[in-house]
Amino acid sequence: MQYYTEPISRLIEEFSKLPGIGKKTAQRLAFHVINMNNNDVEALSKAILDAKKEIKYCSICCNITDKDPCSMCSNPNRDSSVICVVEDPRDVAAMEKIREFKGQYHVLNGVISPMDGIGPDMINIKELIQRLGNQDVKEIIMATNPTIEGEATAMYIARLIKPMGIKVTRIAHGLPIGGDLEYADEVTISKALEGRREI
Amino acid sequence: MQYYTEPISRLIEEFSKLPGIGKKTAQRLAFHVINMNNNDVEALSKAILDAKKEIKYCSICCNITDKDPCSMCSNPNRDSSVICVVEDPRDVAAMEKIREFKGQYHVLNGVISPMDGIGPDMINIKELIQRLGNQDVKEIIMATNPTIEGEATAMYIARLIKPMGIKVTRIAHGLPIGGDLEYADEVTISKALEGRREI
Repeated sequence: MQYYTEPISRLIEEFSKLPGIGKKTAQRLAFHVINMNNNDVEALSKAILDAKKEIKYCSICCNITDKDPCSMCSNPNRDSSVICVVEDPRDVAAMEKIREFKGQYHVLNGVISPMDGIGPDMINIKELIQRLGNQDVKEIIMATNPTIEGEATAMYIARLIKPMGIKVTRIAHGLPIGGDLEYADEVTISKALEGRREI
Repeated sequence: MQYYTEPISRLIEEFSKLPGIGKKTAQRLAFHVINMNNNDVEALSKAILDAKKEIKYCSICCNITDKDPCSMCSNPNRDSSVICVVEDPRDVAAMEKIREFKGQYHVLNGVISPMDGIGPDMINIKELIQRLGNQDVKEIIMATNPTIEGEATAMYIARLIKPMGIKVTRIAHGLPIGGDLEYADEVTISKALEGRREI
């Protein structure tokens, strides 16, 4: 790094702190930046600052938003009686892409993971429970990821909510569309078999 | 992208303009940024602006620098009678890593490439010629890349300089150390054979 002049090596260092950006990529990005025109450089620099400064969390669903409550929680066309619980804002985007779900979301912002020292009180579970007291909810769809932590979190929340008389469902696990039985792992096949339905 | 709030989708868009950064990576980077602490975000944003603002080109060797002339051209311990001609600042860094070359550099900032509309007057060739008038140069080492454009540029410059009575050399082409004859391409093998030396 000492082979480059100071502003460049500082930028390379900053870029290489980002996830998935190694030294070579950071170097390529830094040289791209000095060849970009001034407006584009300013836009990039500003977008980074703004994203950090302007991002708020919705007081209802805990999703990232620029206004509170967020556009989804304040949308009267969305069914407030169904709440889909997801791990993070990217999962909301993934769900929205299918254009089928018209209920509301709740973003946990993580999963219970004792290995990483993350307990139930460190993710947005109490906000979800509080919300159930404020709005008339008929169904909670647990859409945490199909990982050990995601499953455990789904189970934990289901056990908290079921006594309140609210239906709790879990998204289906099985073979992905376009997948191949031959190459699927045992757990997926076992889940697919377990979740079989009459046709 | 419309699934995210404005500051985030703007940042994702800015990131995905960078080379080698696709939509998914841009998304991961953007979410990383909003989870970074304020100081780190400001440092990143500032480093981008500074790199663009503070970068100058050395009036002697055309390398990027923060002061003019650059630290290499103004270093009295470097041999000013040997100039290594490279395509861009990254090549200077690559050469410096071997810690063997003690001469000076000249950065062309590109190669002659008629296909891309880049002619000899669009890269720093006239600066090199001018430099030969100002300092006593004994050897020019052409270290442009072993590509068609790099070779053509080396040949073009060699033809300009040879009449001035200055020795022009070209870095060797051949099998890379650790390489395998079986997997080497024909051009490399042919160059390796052509450049054979008595042992």
